[in-house]
Amino acid sequence: MACAKVYIVGGGPGDPDLITVKGLKLLEKADVIVYDRLAPRELLSRFVQKAELIDVGKRPGGIGPAQEEINELLYEKACEGKVVVRLKGGDPYTFGRGEEECMYLVERGVECEVVPGVPSYVAAAALHHIPITSRGVSSSFAVVPGREAKGKPESRKVKLEEIARAVDTLVILMGAGNADYLARRLLRVLEPETPVAIAMNVSMPNARTIITTLSRLARGDHRSEIENPAVIIVGESVRLRGKLLHAG
Amino acid sequence: MACAKVYIVGGGPGDPDLITVKGLKLLEKADVIVYDRLAPRELLSRFVQKAELIDVGKRPGGIGPAQEEINELLYEKACEGKVVVRLKGGDPYTFGRGEEECMYLVERGVECEVVPGVPSYVAAAALHHIPITSRGVSSSFAVVPGREAKGKPESRKVKLEEIARAVDTLVILMGAGNADYLARRLLRVLEPETPVAIAMNVSMPNARTIITTLSRLARGDHRSEIENPAVIIVGESVRLRGKLLHAG
Repeated sequence: MACAKVYIVGGGPGDPDLITVKGLKLLEKADVIVYDRLAPRELLSRFVQKAELIDVGKRPGGIGPAQEEINELLYEKACEGKVVVRLKGGDPYTFGRGEEECMYLVERGVECEVVPGVPSYVAAAALHHIPITSRGVSSSFAVVPGREAKGKPESRKVKLEEIARAVDTLVILMGAGNADYLARRLLRVLEPETPVAIAMNVSMPNARTIITTLSRLARGDHRSEIENPAVIIVGESVRLRGKLLHAG
Repeated sequence: MACAKVYIVGGGPGDPDLITVKGLKLLEKADVIVYDRLAPRELLSRFVQKAELIDVGKRPGGIGPAQEEINELLYEKACEGKVVVRLKGGDPYTFGRGEEECMYLVERGVECEVVPGVPSYVAAAALHHIPITSRGVSSSFAVVPGREAKGKPESRKVKLEEIARAVDTLVILMGAGNADYLARRLLRVLEPETPVAIAMNVSMPNARTIITTLSRLARGDHRSEIENPAVIIVGESVRLRGKLLHAG
């Protein structure tokens, strides 16, 4: 049987209504849905009767199927002729590893189509009232991971301080676990009073925001409050939140 | 009459199916839709009979209503008790000026809710086969505008070279008009052979991709081909495109 096309779909930040219309349509026609830990769970529950649902999410600590196993699973299901949707949290091509899965498939002659999703940090900005850019306040931003793969050579590591110095707004993903360490590094190049927002469980019912400063974060003031998944936003545009929250 | 809440909605890159489900639901209940030049036009055509559609888009050259007029229009319509959706291209809080409109409303006691959208550069990555990040290739990126407001003080200008040196992937928005000038600046800090992708009319039927190098772009080789709106992506991850395009 000819292998079917695999759809690698960005599910957005978690709220089932923040997937794209296209993503939802693909889920509706899927035979198999292979999903991550951060894929929108509430959305998935609608498809339990209609499709085979396969959880390949890594738990914190990294326990779960290896990337190679996920790649192989997608390939096998597609080559059974099934409509496979690979559902990811956020967006597949910005810190989503979608390209690793797509490359594996394409090398084996299986087509893949990537459907973009709303990244967590974009949703954090909109829903937590923190514009990432704003005229006269911030006109550039960078997005970096808060932790890096073990054994990464020094020359390939994220240049956190250089980036922070160069852009107006810095966004850190996957940084909940070592936020105080990251803040201490940022203090080398940014003012202690630089405002910081930490948006947790973005778009979910248990969403929370912490507004603080780099120095307080570095001191560990929020260590017990910060939980995964979190988006950390550093820069002057955080101050606009006060003007964007409805007083009523 | 009490003023209604205003919804500031990211419409995504242009394909009517790349708006979020939430965004679409809001359009369906809107009395008034105030839209931009880059808001998804095909999507709007479905609502011509159901809602009052108001075009406030600026044409290239800046001709169109001033921001203050748009703010006032949103306020007036909301205070007639109408359900107002302010539909923008991409996302409202990443280079979308959504915060200016929201602030104006909140200052006057009118509530606003911001619904995130898929930014153009996120869609460009997915649809033009250029992952912005990829394990072992790129683990950081920055997004900057290709042109800046007139009269901006030097100290507030985007530090293009510093940013380009610090991140793995650089994304430039609104840079079609002066791509060769930007490339010449980037050549001060990046190698001439650095790969560059220019994704135009992302997600639209007339979408096109140019793959080139910084030196060729700087030389003006593509001046006649580049058209607005364009997303320029600079960095090694552009090379992955060859491995992600299906050979078939």
